[in-house]
Amino acid sequence: TEAGDAALLAELLEPLHGADIADLLEQVTTAERREILRLYGREMDGEILTEIDESIREEVIEQIPADVLAEAVRELDSDDVVDLIEDLEEVQQEAILEALDETDRAAVEQSLTWPENSAGRLMQREVVVAPLHWTVAEAIGFLQREDWLPDQFYHVILVDPAHHPVGYVTLGKILSSKPETALTAITEDSFRTISARQEEGDVAYAFNQYHLISAPVVDDDGRLVGVITIDDAMNVLDEEHEEDILRLAGVGEESSISDSVLETVRQRLPWLVANLFTASLSAIVISQFQATISALVALAALMPIVASTGGIAGTQSLAVAVRALATRDLTASNARRVVLREIGAGLVNGLSLALLLGVAGGLIFGHVELGVVLGLAMIVNQLVAALGGVMVPLTLERLGLDPALASGTFVTTLTDVMGFFAFLGLASWVLI
Amino acid sequence: TEAGDAALLAELLEPLHGADIADLLEQVTTAERREILRLYGREMDGEILTEIDESIREEVIEQIPADVLAEAVRELDSDDVVDLIEDLEEVQQEAILEALDETDRAAVEQSLTWPENSAGRLMQREVVVAPLHWTVAEAIGFLQREDWLPDQFYHVILVDPAHHPVGYVTLGKILSSKPETALTAITEDSFRTISARQEEGDVAYAFNQYHLISAPVVDDDGRLVGVITIDDAMNVLDEEHEEDILRLAGVGEESSISDSVLETVRQRLPWLVANLFTASLSAIVISQFQATISALVALAALMPIVASTGGIAGTQSLAVAVRALATRDLTASNARRVVLREIGAGLVNGLSLALLLGVAGGLIFGHVELGVVLGLAMIVNQLVAALGGVMVPLTLERLGLDPALASGTFVTTLTDVMGFFAFLGLASWVLI
Repeated sequence: TEAGDAALLAELLEPLHGADIADLLEQVTTAERREILRLYGREMDGEILTEIDESIREEVIEQIPADVLAEAVRELDSDDVVDLIEDLEEVQQEAILEALDETDRAAVEQSLTWPENSAGRLMQREVVVAPLHWTVAEAIGFLQREDWLPDQFYHVILVDPAHHPVGYVTLGKILSSKPETALTAITEDSFRTISARQEEGDVAYAFNQYHLISAPVVDDDGRLVGVITIDDAMNVLDEEHEEDILRLAGVGEESSISDSVLETVRQRLPWLVANLFTASLSAIVISQFQATISALVALAALMPIVASTGGIAGTQSLAVAVRALATRDLTASNARRVVLREIGAGLVNGLSLALLLGVAGGLIFGHVELGVVLGLAMIVNQLVAALGGVMVPLTLERLGLDPALASGTFVTTLTDVMGFFAFLGLASWVLI
Repeated sequence: TEAGDAALLAELLEPLHGADIADLLEQVTTAERREILRLYGREMDGEILTEIDESIREEVIEQIPADVLAEAVRELDSDDVVDLIEDLEEVQQEAILEALDETDRAAVEQSLTWPENSAGRLMQREVVVAPLHWTVAEAIGFLQREDWLPDQFYHVILVDPAHHPVGYVTLGKILSSKPETALTAITEDSFRTISARQEEGDVAYAFNQYHLISAPVVDDDGRLVGVITIDDAMNVLDEEHEEDILRLAGVGEESSISDSVLETVRQRLPWLVANLFTASLSAIVISQFQATISALVALAALMPIVASTGGIAGTQSLAVAVRALATRDLTASNARRVVLREIGAGLVNGLSLALLLGVAGGLIFGHVELGVVLGLAMIVNQLVAALGGVMVPLTLERLGLDPALASGTFVTTLTDVMGFFAFLGLASWVLI
């Protein structure tokens, strides 16, 4: 029976964490998902909702009964509601905002006034603060009296009378210090504030770099408006990585394992079509050398070796550069040195490969000049690859774009075109 | 003067966080690093040491005066010492272990008995525990009496008499609950234990998936032996990202921006040489069709278009699959569906590109059959690319290898070889 199925499903999913139920919904087909939601819709809670991947969020929300959705949303902290609704269509946004009580709705609407992907959207507004002059005993008394404390908090933030954060104290220190200790005497060195306008990727970097557990967020006047905790920062770090790896490969960063065939095509076809045009450049270059190829058809067989090894070298150099830009290890101050390092490595790699390939080519074809041409073309293309791999992302970064944005396509086009040009050009000059 | 320079440098670096000083050391040249350490060596402390990248760690440690090193190491928690020394040469390991007092040395040596990259190596051994029957008041009294508490702790772990962890309580709950409350009444739902043998990548996944802040680590008998905190898990997550992105590109995962030219070559040349052999496969395939190419040299110009678009499609499919494997979104239970999705997307992409390219090729060359051959080869190679992109990492994973391990090289070799074979094969059959 329908009711029996629903009960069985609820029983099966009961021991799972909300994040795992959300993953399950993402991993099944659209039809299976509809069926699960029909039977399980009334059990959906706030925890599951916040974990649902963006790629299926609108679809899932549409299928949850309105009263269940309202109830689920009311359980959530304001930062989770913001995260849930910021990418929804306006109708769905309205429905969710209406379910909230007035204070929460105001908090969410205020958060939405901060730019997308900013610290202001990421922060929770529930903050535990203490005036500068308090002692440990006063702080403990306050915490015991209050009944609105957030679920998770690790620090008490000290604020001056203008509500500027000036330090924080861990709960561990409060618990282990003598009651008469001044809070200002036990603040942490790691204290740093974050501007609400700061980009969330920079926030994640700061948490990872400085081992922050939580950090106060301030508005343009330096007043405390919220707090970001490390679990949110870890989530952002993970999403940034997803963006890097997908963009490098020329895939829309919203790609998900739950995408349908058509969504997958929509994410990938544009870059493939773009590549059709860039690949035509290679074809045009090669077609200039038709006479050369006619004279020595072996050239057609050998030319992809130079191009493909260049493609690999460019991808290597690119991966190191994109990663170093993401971790702020490649900066304006050492860019010149890194570029020189890449040129050096490209030269050494090129020479080594040239020697190998030149000797092998010469021996196999019994044609010394052919070996020399292969070797020289390899050196040129390895240099181009090494340089392109680091200059393309550096240039994109300088232009204010994401250095990973389809740089893979740019760099392999470059190494293809240069590989064919160097090899066939040298061949027509030396051999024919 | 030397002393003046040292004082100036110390003054300049004084406001920086240890992590930033470590980054600075990583970003300069070896010669500059030697000079900085000569002037600044006596100021090195434990915080900077733990932040120093593995690529320069041995070199830096050699240049710090022995007494400064000993002092710096004594400041550190046992997990940081383990992290610092696990990859050092034995002589340096010994020197550091000798600097520790006996209890700390025993703790570090014990941690080193756990497998590399396991939770046992990652955990800190200083744990705050309470017996199951305690109340909030007893816990607060205990925390105020103890003077050995770790710098950072967020939970009190409840243990049964056999020292098995059975739950934990946040410090926030302890501070805000009434003194007579039983600790067992305010434990967190998020509680889960981690086996000391668990791989650190799995630990990082669990923290990110279940929003853990800290988690107790247990030995093979389920007894509490340590605790892992989220900042360490975030660090591991970041390192796993680095591995993924570098391995996909066929670069040794120890690549760093501070590497010299020769180290860079050592990280990259092996894969380039491997690619020389795989690229030779393409050359061999093409050389089988020399007669065809001689008959119609335009084929030589067009063949890289099919191969290169296949390479891009393979890289796209690969990036999505490797990412989904890393986030556990691609599992045995949905692998079949994902493979079918890829085939579907490959077919649609192939048909779209074939139409574009076939029409363009036919129009430009005024040669309908050539357009048809281009189109058909494109469809075949897009299918191969889509399938290869998901099957290569799935197979590596099935074999217990890292799915990112140079899969890029495998997949582009596959699409190159198949692209040339399909295009030239069809051409020799249809056109000649």
